Amino acid sequence: MSEFDLIQRHLTGLGAARDDVLLDVGDDCALLRVPADRELALSIDTLVAGVHFLPEADPEGLGHKSLAVGLSDLAAVGAEPAWATLALTLPTPDETWLAAFARGFAELARQEDVRLVGGDLTRGPLTMSVQVHGLVPQGHALRRSGARPGDLVCVSGALGDAGLALRHLQRGEPLGDYLRQRLERPTPRVALGEVLRGVASAAIDLSDGLASDLGHILGASACGARIELDRLPLADQVAGEVAAEHDWTLPLTAGDDYELCFTLPPTHIGELKVLAAAAGCPLTQIGEIEAQPGLRWMTADGHQWHSDHLGYDHFAP
Amino acid sequence: MSEFDLIQRHLTGLGAARDDVLLDVGDDCALLRVPADRELALSIDTLVAGVHFLPEADPEGLGHKSLAVGLSDLAAVGAEPAWATLALTLPTPDETWLAAFARGFAELARQEDVRLVGGDLTRGPLTMSVQVHGLVPQGHALRRSGARPGDLVCVSGALGDAGLALRHLQRGEPLGDYLRQRLERPTPRVALGEVLRGVASAAIDLSDGLASDLGHILGASACGARIELDRLPLADQVAGEVAAEHDWTLPLTAGDDYELCFTLPPTHIGELKVLAAAAGCPLTQIGEIEAQPGLRWMTADGHQWHSDHLGYDHFAP
Repeated sequence: MSEFDLIQRHLTGLGAARDDVLLDVGDDCALLRVPADRELALSIDTLVAGVHFLPEADPEGLGHKSLAVGLSDLAAVGAEPAWATLALTLPTPDETWLAAFARGFAELARQEDVRLVGGDLTRGPLTMSVQVHGLVPQGHALRRSGARPGDLVCVSGALGDAGLALRHLQRGEPLGDYLRQRLERPTPRVALGEVLRGVASAAIDLSDGLASDLGHILGASACGARIELDRLPLADQVAGEVAAEHDWTLPLTAGDDYELCFTLPPTHIGELKVLAAAAGCPLTQIGEIEAQPGLRWMTADGHQWHSDHLGYDHFAP
Repeated sequence: MSEFDLIQRHLTGLGAARDDVLLDVGDDCALLRVPADRELALSIDTLVAGVHFLPEADPEGLGHKSLAVGLSDLAAVGAEPAWATLALTLPTPDETWLAAFARGFAELARQEDVRLVGGDLTRGPLTMSVQVHGLVPQGHALRRSGARPGDLVCVSGALGDAGLALRHLQRGEPLGDYLRQRLERPTPRVALGEVLRGVASAAIDLSDGLASDLGHILGASACGARIELDRLPLADQVAGEVAAEHDWTLPLTAGDDYELCFTLPPTHIGELKVLAAAAGCPLTQIGEIEAQPGLRWMTADGHQWHSDHLGYDHFAP
């Protein structure tokens, strides 16, 4: 089975049919049509075996996740997903693995109306880079830089689930369905991103942990924030871990949740429930933007601690 | 030095300034403007250490080459280069290596008016995926599928240089400047691709070798070709190797030359010299498209041999 045959058999025609795709897999380039009133949003992310996932991870889940992490970036700017490309490096031409990977990728792609329009298949250490492309009305993309003092800080879903799942796996402990899904099949908050356009003042997706990612909003917006720890939305298992260890590190610094963190001008405070209903996911106000730089975490008993950078960093010492 | 610092210091602001870049490195997505009368062309390619290049290869050359291979795909469809993204996986945060890589990448990017608009920097086995994005007038992209019997088959530049350079390296033999440049700093034929729009009937870039890549044109166009071996444009060293070994494998199957192979309706036969002057590179007619499927290689003494698939294949047995 050659490289060309593998692409033809497993990586051609994946995802939704879209009439803005003029040419996809099989020529030197894909050719695509961007409407005149839209901006093109794009993001590329890499997952490396042994770094981002265990080499023996379920390939169908990897197909899902490799696309989901990119869609989460599109959600963060409020873009409507359109196309994806895949650079896949495999140690061996394992057709069973590839078919499962393609199945997981294609299922999420169809759900989110995404077409796989191109890629590259090479031999080497197991690695996958997926680039996603979305469309956003001109001038209406969400950015990290729009937060202002007095804005509410909100997050979708729950925090720390993927981090707890990873802990269990690393300790060889059994993993329940909920945590497994949250680690292996994260749900990109695409619908939320779209309803936040024109409403949120800034947004980011939580890939490296709340402390790090909210820190990026604060840096880009030149302000600070005060977060009420007891407001953090936590699944029971994560809340239990926090209580048992007297340690908030898990929900504050564990990555891979792919929720959105966004800021909302106080005039929109009444709309949180409506937004949550439109987006199909819980939304929680966890704090407030302040003029004073830095991140201040407030405990229920009135204690405060600071952090500048607590998230995952590939090259941290 | 953290991941964010490395990106900030070495991978931000690379390449040409472009006013169609609304937002580049530093948010969840890049935001770009595509003119209403243009189609978006894109292509992604991966280079893996130990597979596509030697781990000890000059990083500045790798920066150049990782962008050049993508620009060569844009050239093959006649697109004007615009933006690139980079997914770079490094074993260690080696700043000297990264600075040299960025230098090579940026120099070619500036030459070709390309802006690096986004990327991902991860830890793992040395691998780089570059996606390039170009713009092409609506309906005027070159494709693989337009070749017709009677069309001339042409190539730019010379064939087999990169393959010969690799042979020398693998044998531990010294490498002259010409061959080293051809392997490590290939010139994507961007200007040629643009002048071929509306003139060539089909085009492809030579990344896997003439036999394989011309084979893709023939497959997509449902026709065959007859190639005159003594017309192949060969540098003296390659011609010497062919003569010494009585073997045409090198110019026919070695990849990595990044020349263009294209077909030209016979009505345009008089324009080859004009096109070559406009593109700034030699163009050579090497054969003719025929209705009968298959590739027929003709030697000067009238012998003929067939081939179906002689190029590089990552997963060939």
